[in-house]
Amino acid sequence: MSKVNIDQKLALFNDYYSPKIVGELNGQQVKLVKLKGEFVWHKHDQEDELFLVLKGSLIMEFRDRTEIINENEFIIVPRGVEHKPVANEEVSVMLFEPATTLNTGNTKSEFTKEVLDRL
Amino acid sequence: MSKVNIDQKLALFNDYYSPKIVGELNGQQVKLVKLKGEFVWHKHDQEDELFLVLKGSLIMEFRDRTEIINENEFIIVPRGVEHKPVANEEVSVMLFEPATTLNTGNTKSEFTKEVLDRL
Repeated sequence: MSKVNIDQKLALFNDYYSPKIVGELNGQQVKLVKLKGEFVWHKHDQEDELFLVLKGSLIMEFRDRTEIINENEFIIVPRGVEHKPVANEEVSVMLFEPATTLNTGNTKSEFTKEVLDRL
Repeated sequence: MSKVNIDQKLALFNDYYSPKIVGELNGQQVKLVKLKGEFVWHKHDQEDELFLVLKGSLIMEFRDRTEIINENEFIIVPRGVEHKPVANEEVSVMLFEPATTLNTGNTKSEFTKEVLDRL
């Protein structure tokens, strides 16, 4: 039940598209992730997913449109909706999602992380 | 599924200890709240509660200790744990918690908000 300093946690890692667990509550997890480059198209059949941008600008592609999420903005991607994160420059993001959420959803790829580190 | 700009939402209200709903996912809600002054001692028997400080410094009193949560820090208060938020100056906070969470938990008081606005 100690407080968590987000900047301190972000300083602990430099790998991209590899979420780190920094909190758990009510069956949900709080994760930090750094993004750079294009991710894969995927969806989560059972989980809604919140992306809160901490640093940089996140491009979220949907099949019918694109959203640009800047610092201090968030977007909730509902379950079942295909999406592809893209980061032209490094972006730091906080995720809030069920503990069951796999980062690549229904699309197994080289980005898939079955086990996440806890910071 | 539009993005939410936190600063724009914070600019829409000025009342204290009156959380506003700005997002919902997986049975959880994202709320924004401004705090100033002392809240009431309370606990939530069924809900863990996350406080992410956006602006200012939040003092969180527990029965056995006090935590000061600064900007870009968060704390998770587990269900059943008595706590009392205190803000000497105005503090802006994002909450993540189940949709069932009542702001004053088990302590009905003049602070209790049974119905929350959505922004």
